[in-house]
Amino acid sequence: MIPVKTLVLAACTAAGLMASLPASAQFAKPEDAIKYRQGAFTVMGAHFGRIGAMVQGRVPYDAKAAAENADIVAAMAKLPWQAFGEGTDKGAPHRAKPEIWREADKVKAGADKLVADTANLATVAKAGNLDQLRAAFGTVGQSCKACHDAYRADRYSN
Amino acid sequence: MIPVKTLVLAACTAAGLMASLPASAQFAKPEDAIKYRQGAFTVMGAHFGRIGAMVQGRVPYDAKAAAENADIVAAMAKLPWQAFGEGTDKGAPHRAKPEIWREADKVKAGADKLVADTANLATVAKAGNLDQLRAAFGTVGQSCKACHDAYRADRYSN
Repeated sequence: MIPVKTLVLAACTAAGLMASLPASAQFAKPEDAIKYRQGAFTVMGAHFGRIGAMVQGRVPYDAKAAAENADIVAAMAKLPWQAFGEGTDKGAPHRAKPEIWREADKVKAGADKLVADTANLATVAKAGNLDQLRAAFGTVGQSCKACHDAYRADRYSN
Repeated sequence: MIPVKTLVLAACTAAGLMASLPASAQFAKPEDAIKYRQGAFTVMGAHFGRIGAMVQGRVPYDAKAAAENADIVAAMAKLPWQAFGEGTDKGAPHRAKPEIWREADKVKAGADKLVADTANLATVAKAGNLDQLRAAFGTVGQSCKACHDAYRADRYSN
């Protein structure tokens, strides 16, 4: 039998119940939640960066690759929020500021905006127009930056 | 301007050119590739584990949640392979055995099988039959295990 991480309660949908369930609801231990959200951000950032390289002219524009990357960005954007549940401020080094657990409404609004902006990025990327892609990329980047400025520390905890 | 990671060459499609391009083709530095593949595996494992909890009876079967989790598993299964490029055996602690860079054909076959098995899992999950889901889950789990047994060390490097 393949070992799988234990879940205490039924999985809930991505981006749904952030901060309203204890970490144990979806992750066996806080460390798992921290690594999960960091993993989702890492994958999202890598693919967002590939679009960035195109819209900033560092690599040739490839509409198909841009669309594939944007789909991954949009899928990943839904994920990390479920992993900021109560009790996930400790357990592994991370860069989330304490405010992220105190300002759940603001964080949820930022997360919802990112999900919407990345969905738009994926739609725009499929249209194959570099100028439109650049604009949609910029909007997503502003969403990233707004939450990073407010909720991401410069240094890792622990 | 939002800082994004630098890419040297155009992004190529997921699961495409594993081990045939240097790490610099898609990741600015080996550490980025290592963190990317670990992140993709972490996210994949978390969602696979949620399906596991259902098929093993630890949480109630929720067909909608199973389908959502399976879609994420299938999307993530395509990703890590691009990040095992040449030169990504050092740069951050990891558990990939040296064989993974020596046996590119076998690794690609295993990766392709996982992509196919997880696509099947996603299809089966949408059908809403728990017994079929359990079987598809088991097939994916065997794919995971085969590569882990061959290519994943017990301890982290570095």
